[in-house]
Amino acid sequence: MDQLIEDRVTMALSLDNTTRAELWGRVVDVIENYTTDISKLRIGPDLDPAKVRADLVPVNFDRPMEPAKALEFTLDILMRHQTHVVHPRYFGLYDPAPSAMGVIAETLVAAFNPQLSVWIQSPGAVEIEQLLVRLFGEKFGYDKSKVDGTFTSGGAEANHTALLTALTHAFPNFVSKGLRALSSQPVLYVSSEGHHSVLKAAQSCGLGTEAVREIEIDRDLRMDVKVLSARIANDKAEGLQPFLIVGTAGTTNAGVVDPLGELGDIAAREALWFHVDSAWGGAVVLVSELRHLLSGIEHADSITFDPHKLLSVPRSAGLYLTRHPNILAKTFDVAAAYMPGMNSSEQVVDQFRHSLQWSRRFIGLKLFMTLAVAGWDGYAEVIRQQLSVGEYLRSELERSGWKVLNDSALGVLCFVDRTHDDGALSTYLEAIREDVVSSGEAWISITRLGKSTPALRACIVNYLTRPDDVSALVASLNKARDNHMLHGHRGMNTKE
Amino acid sequence: MDQLIEDRVTMALSLDNTTRAELWGRVVDVIENYTTDISKLRIGPDLDPAKVRADLVPVNFDRPMEPAKALEFTLDILMRHQTHVVHPRYFGLYDPAPSAMGVIAETLVAAFNPQLSVWIQSPGAVEIEQLLVRLFGEKFGYDKSKVDGTFTSGGAEANHTALLTALTHAFPNFVSKGLRALSSQPVLYVSSEGHHSVLKAAQSCGLGTEAVREIEIDRDLRMDVKVLSARIANDKAEGLQPFLIVGTAGTTNAGVVDPLGELGDIAAREALWFHVDSAWGGAVVLVSELRHLLSGIEHADSITFDPHKLLSVPRSAGLYLTRHPNILAKTFDVAAAYMPGMNSSEQVVDQFRHSLQWSRRFIGLKLFMTLAVAGWDGYAEVIRQQLSVGEYLRSELERSGWKVLNDSALGVLCFVDRTHDDGALSTYLEAIREDVVSSGEAWISITRLGKSTPALRACIVNYLTRPDDVSALVASLNKARDNHMLHGHRGMNTKE
Repeated sequence: MDQLIEDRVTMALSLDNTTRAELWGRVVDVIENYTTDISKLRIGPDLDPAKVRADLVPVNFDRPMEPAKALEFTLDILMRHQTHVVHPRYFGLYDPAPSAMGVIAETLVAAFNPQLSVWIQSPGAVEIEQLLVRLFGEKFGYDKSKVDGTFTSGGAEANHTALLTALTHAFPNFVSKGLRALSSQPVLYVSSEGHHSVLKAAQSCGLGTEAVREIEIDRDLRMDVKVLSARIANDKAEGLQPFLIVGTAGTTNAGVVDPLGELGDIAAREALWFHVDSAWGGAVVLVSELRHLLSGIEHADSITFDPHKLLSVPRSAGLYLTRHPNILAKTFDVAAAYMPGMNSSEQVVDQFRHSLQWSRRFIGLKLFMTLAVAGWDGYAEVIRQQLSVGEYLRSELERSGWKVLNDSALGVLCFVDRTHDDGALSTYLEAIREDVVSSGEAWISITRLGKSTPALRACIVNYLTRPDDVSALVASLNKARDNHMLHGHRGMNTKE
Repeated sequence: MDQLIEDRVTMALSLDNTTRAELWGRVVDVIENYTTDISKLRIGPDLDPAKVRADLVPVNFDRPMEPAKALEFTLDILMRHQTHVVHPRYFGLYDPAPSAMGVIAETLVAAFNPQLSVWIQSPGAVEIEQLLVRLFGEKFGYDKSKVDGTFTSGGAEANHTALLTALTHAFPNFVSKGLRALSSQPVLYVSSEGHHSVLKAAQSCGLGTEAVREIEIDRDLRMDVKVLSARIANDKAEGLQPFLIVGTAGTTNAGVVDPLGELGDIAAREALWFHVDSAWGGAVVLVSELRHLLSGIEHADSITFDPHKLLSVPRSAGLYLTRHPNILAKTFDVAAAYMPGMNSSEQVVDQFRHSLQWSRRFIGLKLFMTLAVAGWDGYAEVIRQQLSVGEYLRSELERSGWKVLNDSALGVLCFVDRTHDDGALSTYLEAIREDVVSSGEAWISITRLGKSTPALRACIVNYLTRPDDVSALVASLNKARDNHMLHGHRGMNTKE
């Protein structure tokens, strides 16, 4: 073989040691500067697709770039065309600042490139994940000897897994015969404020989105259990097969926790699988005085929890947990001659038979390394503080004449202008949001509560967000309101 | 708020700058040493679950570790309890050595933590991925103006996406009404040597594994098109609804490519969706003189391709590509009030409406940065060389009295001992594999071709694998064979 070609091949992907050292020096500097100087950056980028695309025009893979230039090019795109969700004044969806150990863990995972499909490829990685599954299951109140679970690409995959395990539990032939072999249509129940990944999962399971009964909410935005009971009875009377109730512990809109105890009771009475989507809110089980907020979750048959939310590990890390030790194996059991196995009587878990994925990244390491350094107590303090900053935001909003519409301990506030809370003026609120976001100084979103009431939404998503940041957000909101009051935007839109 | 608590909270997750600098110094050293000294490591670890678990017993999250200690603890587990798939003498499943730019990209993704669910959160990231989707679609022969696609967690998710898009295409009500609203059971076709993630996808879509017709293979291990045609006719006669043919371009067992042109013709004639799973083999479209191996793939309705295989980016990176520009939007369209949107007439893609995932990592950056440095030509050379090393392995095996059972250009060899190729003696081959792997000097797997014929399997998965490594593997195989011939292991197992 030609030595020159071999060298070129190595260089194309591996580079040489001098280049690697230079690149890593720059990368470590960039990460350090991003960490220390993040609060000086504009949060929201210029949102013009044409400009982003124009910046990518020079990319031509027929003409390779020098590694250092490729790095700078990428950094330029990332710095200019990215909503800096890591910023402490980003009050948006759940995109936390990543823990330092989490970033390091992801780097190690990339370099070692472990394969988690079968145990024998990555025994250390699989056992670390299984340890975390057991410990988190226990924190949620499961019997340690029974808990099983798997890391997922996020809450959507975990919720999808929940639907599949619930189907397999209710209909043992589901795996081989599918939905059409059943005597009637299975249906499931979730609050109308639940996460729409449940709808997507229903569609992806072949149930169809109409199989999802979106149950009306009560005045506190929680699933209305009376409506739920009536709907179940009605569906049964119509010959449908209820099989699953999904409770939400922390709605995306408003951080509302469904009445988990009552939902669990109904599920038990009706012999339905009870899943709790606590992708966001689940973290409070680590805080002793807040644990009661999720009371009843320990009776859930399965749980979704995303460490990449309140536990601040880099995206993505979801967890599906269950107290049924054999259900994942039943749901995903496949055999393949080419997959390496163990000649051992020891019980080990091959992940490709245990989850929706096949080859899989070592998702759990960033949680393991962050938790090893923070400890349970460190995490409890992080969560406690974030929620207390949320309480401060509530008081500051109310002090400035904003009306908070939701009641949540999870640090999310949905609010409107108190003097104009009558007209549901979404364009007025949108104009305020636009002002705040385009200032580059803070970032909030807008939503509709109960699918109808428009509200501004600000959420404490970052462990580095401090009272100063909250004050800056409220000042920015006040300024935007004054601006639109003065210029009569509200009046312009009263026809709405 | 208590300053002391704030500081503790920051420290628990962010650490201080001195600690971060020390940790990164160590991480960069470790990665450099792992890269340069990998060939000195034992490849396969001691496979004793009890030992791995014993090493994790000291983990106690009630007692946090110092960051440096947590790092060393993790490194120790990773070094000792990991099959070092990055090793050039790892001839196993498709777990490549990761490109240097790929590892750097993953580090940046972790630090910036971009959120790809909606365009406005990460315009740069989304546009980089869309650019790659268009360019790779074009490489596979799609019309650039029509190609669409999405990055996935791997080939399993891409195949799952293929089933869902095929169902949505065939049955427009599938999304809302599900499978039970159809007039009869949909069925699909894949070779019996195809990847079993198709079975898992069928189960996860609610079709059931029995909806998958595993079509017999011909002598060359390719899907038998006559059997396929007969089976389709038979299924139709029985009132079932064929909707999808999955061709495989590079079977996991033996690197075999199905007759894509003929499969495409049958699909067109029968009006079925034609998907090609080229998770592994797809990379040859980047090599002009090998492009013909995948002739016909340009007529596929959709394609699975895993950049984390032959393109050597860190796990995981899958691609689903399609020439139907609206099918992903139809398949995954969901609306959610809490998701931020664009007030713009510009066409942008919100990924949460475009794939199985919701919140998603920036999967494409590692491919973008690696490709930027290697260029199309660099990748072509990498692939060409790996396949030529595979040819060298074939000649070396044959020269040493091994009989190669498969015919593949993709650098995978399935082989038996030529003097004992009669008895299908899997325990004899397993003993040889065990010797090779337990030596720590090389790593191969064992499989069954056509679900019956046992064979040792060695695959060139690493761009750093050189003829020397191949010679070492063959020497190790020869030694193991001699050993078992001498000690009569073969005789012991003739009862099989």
